[in-house]
Amino acid sequence: MNLLEALQHLLGAQYVLTGDDAASYLTDWRGRYTGSALAVVRPADTAQVAAVVKLCAEHGAPVVPQGGNTGLVGGATPDATGRAVVISLGRMNRVRTVDTDNDTMTVEAGCILQNLQEVARNANRLFPLSLAAEGSCTIGGNLATNAGGTQVLRYGNTRDLTLGLEVVTPQGEVWNGLRGLRKDNTGYDLRDLYVGSEGTLGIITAATLKLYPMPVARCTALLALASVPDAVAFLSRARAGFGASLTGFELMSAACLELVTRHYPQQRLPFDGSVEQHAWYALLELSDSESEAHARERFEAVLGAALEDGEVQDAAIAENLAQSHAMWHLRESIPLAQAEEGKNIKHDVSIPISRIADFVAATDTLLQEHFPGVRNITFGHLGDGNLHYNVQGPVGEAEPAVLARQDDIYQLVHDSVHAFDGSISAEHGVGQLKRDELVRYKNPVELALMQRIKQALDPQGLMNPGKTLQDAGQV
Amino acid sequence: MNLLEALQHLLGAQYVLTGDDAASYLTDWRGRYTGSALAVVRPADTAQVAAVVKLCAEHGAPVVPQGGNTGLVGGATPDATGRAVVISLGRMNRVRTVDTDNDTMTVEAGCILQNLQEVARNANRLFPLSLAAEGSCTIGGNLATNAGGTQVLRYGNTRDLTLGLEVVTPQGEVWNGLRGLRKDNTGYDLRDLYVGSEGTLGIITAATLKLYPMPVARCTALLALASVPDAVAFLSRARAGFGASLTGFELMSAACLELVTRHYPQQRLPFDGSVEQHAWYALLELSDSESEAHARERFEAVLGAALEDGEVQDAAIAENLAQSHAMWHLRESIPLAQAEEGKNIKHDVSIPISRIADFVAATDTLLQEHFPGVRNITFGHLGDGNLHYNVQGPVGEAEPAVLARQDDIYQLVHDSVHAFDGSISAEHGVGQLKRDELVRYKNPVELALMQRIKQALDPQGLMNPGKTLQDAGQV
Repeated sequence: MNLLEALQHLLGAQYVLTGDDAASYLTDWRGRYTGSALAVVRPADTAQVAAVVKLCAEHGAPVVPQGGNTGLVGGATPDATGRAVVISLGRMNRVRTVDTDNDTMTVEAGCILQNLQEVARNANRLFPLSLAAEGSCTIGGNLATNAGGTQVLRYGNTRDLTLGLEVVTPQGEVWNGLRGLRKDNTGYDLRDLYVGSEGTLGIITAATLKLYPMPVARCTALLALASVPDAVAFLSRARAGFGASLTGFELMSAACLELVTRHYPQQRLPFDGSVEQHAWYALLELSDSESEAHARERFEAVLGAALEDGEVQDAAIAENLAQSHAMWHLRESIPLAQAEEGKNIKHDVSIPISRIADFVAATDTLLQEHFPGVRNITFGHLGDGNLHYNVQGPVGEAEPAVLARQDDIYQLVHDSVHAFDGSISAEHGVGQLKRDELVRYKNPVELALMQRIKQALDPQGLMNPGKTLQDAGQV
Repeated sequence: MNLLEALQHLLGAQYVLTGDDAASYLTDWRGRYTGSALAVVRPADTAQVAAVVKLCAEHGAPVVPQGGNTGLVGGATPDATGRAVVISLGRMNRVRTVDTDNDTMTVEAGCILQNLQEVARNANRLFPLSLAAEGSCTIGGNLATNAGGTQVLRYGNTRDLTLGLEVVTPQGEVWNGLRGLRKDNTGYDLRDLYVGSEGTLGIITAATLKLYPMPVARCTALLALASVPDAVAFLSRARAGFGASLTGFELMSAACLELVTRHYPQQRLPFDGSVEQHAWYALLELSDSESEAHARERFEAVLGAALEDGEVQDAAIAENLAQSHAMWHLRESIPLAQAEEGKNIKHDVSIPISRIADFVAATDTLLQEHFPGVRNITFGHLGDGNLHYNVQGPVGEAEPAVLARQDDIYQLVHDSVHAFDGSISAEHGVGQLKRDELVRYKNPVELALMQRIKQALDPQGLMNPGKTLQDAGQV
């Protein structure tokens, strides 16, 4: 029996996709990568995943795990050889347990993130992971990439929300590490090693995740600021004044909001005058365990002092849910408005917060020197030091001309990030997109440690080859 | 030149201790383990640590890193062969940088924990790691064991407080991973692999640690409770009502406080009547970003409702700092009062919070069946599911008789912990003490993954052999 027949025998023919049925699994969401595969398989449970991996190991076939296929770095797309078996975890979408006294839930990798938020809400709990793709991404993909999002400032990345894992090893064994413990110092931290390893060390099939009490009230404010240093100074004030109630701090340049209000004229800023009269804006969210009135009172106290000191130029506190949504809508419309404006070059970088102002100033200048007329569309999660430092072509430049410069702009920006002790992938991962750049920027000792671990856990090199690390043939 | 001469040549003879000078480094703090060493060396900086490790690797000599030598599991004591070189990191006690805008500090491994708390305080920041040994333990030891303590509920373990590491590998290379980034998804999470690996994969020489805003006010309350289920129910209410302001939730049985008030009669509970009129007590701490008045108001609101519902039997809110210290002093005196009462058997376990009540009931019963008359001195960090489930001998029993049962009692308690999906080491680590028990309780797939990683990073098996994992000769 060849591998394809063995897979059909194991899973049933309807769960082994080839030809047109497989096509949608072989191109990534942004259409940047297309690969080929022997088959796309859809196992029903952990035992089937383990059996598939074991078969692939016996046949020397590469394995590419895939969740919702919404990743931004090509981490779930097979290469062009057609030898790989794509394992789609979508059928593994059971919530195994919700334990409200322990504030945990144990869920399978194929669960859609938004469904898990809903499951938590139904138990009067918060599962705080939240990001743009939440309607179609899976928790398995979030775990594989250590996804971030808008609430990291308070609740951390996916890694910080994870207590335990179930993993199928490259040998097709099952490690049941589904512990619901906040403290466990019995050996090496395999959990955190697997989170963020992009399927290159094994396949995460289930996880025990942290839940939080549902905040009693949420309150939002939009601030106008003169400069990035003012934003950094105010962040420090806000962290002290709001403590852990501060659950969001999003920075946006005037250029971002100019794009949004121009392409979506029904959206407006809650300030008089033009968008450009202020250079920067910040969106703040408080999650309060008392009341909406208390949250507003806190906003008024802290913002009042900052306005008086001139650290903040103007501020609007949402009076109700509709105004709060409108403020978030401004922030969330930036990528869409960018797309309306034309193709652009995206960066997902992080910088120590104390160096962000200098990074932005220096990189903006460098860009103008080397690519006169390009436009900075800079926004991001300032509280985490994470900027989406995006670059739009000069007004009127044709898209092909912008995209032709893509690699040069990547390199300029990433060189600058590196010079400021930052990371070239804050929350999206490495995948195929940044694999070769990793070699450029990563400390060689660290890279060698990673290679040793990869070699130790996956000596055949069959787990998602060519992702995160260059594989043997490429080194 | 033999290894000893080479070490003297490298570091200067005064930093290579042998004979009596070395003795205090060769016995652990509790006096349970004593080893022997070729020498104890005291390098001045990372380059010297790397050079020492390289020399040891060339000579095939085992390396035992040591911080403040306050560990509870024998993790920093060499074996009896006398072949090992103990590397004491105490001279590496520089604070390299404090970055208040980034809320981080970068410090060397030999810094005393209390000094780091002080450095943070002087910068108007909080470094929240706090534990009994803080006056003499070092941050390097805290990192090696992933130390916990009293503020884990809000701020996490040492791992959660760490952003970056500097590590000397078993080959004597230096990995500079001192990143001050809250988001960095560029490859495997080596940081978290090294934290908690007890010096078996390399030596942590420096770390970049998170700082937090200093709370404006702290407020403490002592509660009387009828049962563990009531305590668990109230914890849930407290998490919802206080949000992230809840920075401490310590549970203590009446037996604990009876010991304290009997051995230290100047200490009193803030309630009328005898200690025994309530079965359990809880110490709560709120850290508030507004004011002391606000913290007290929150306590009154949440405790008022719990008293009304009968979930809490009695409650006292500290009126001032002196009362707050008195409440904490009760909690902190439990281990001392236990020692006054006689030698006892300590456990450091964690259980899913939802199962703690059943665990305590079942294990108490089992203990009485097998060891009639033994006394439970149960206390711990309920908010983390971490119990110090300690066992004192029957009244009047001689100490040797109690200690003779130690291994049997360990096994009974740890079997029960395992049955309740718990961990046999919540915050103290494995070291020598629990190394062989690990084999008993750990999932074999997980143990095999750990062995593969150890083998990959330390193929010579020279890094702190016999700690965490059984070494090759023992398997």
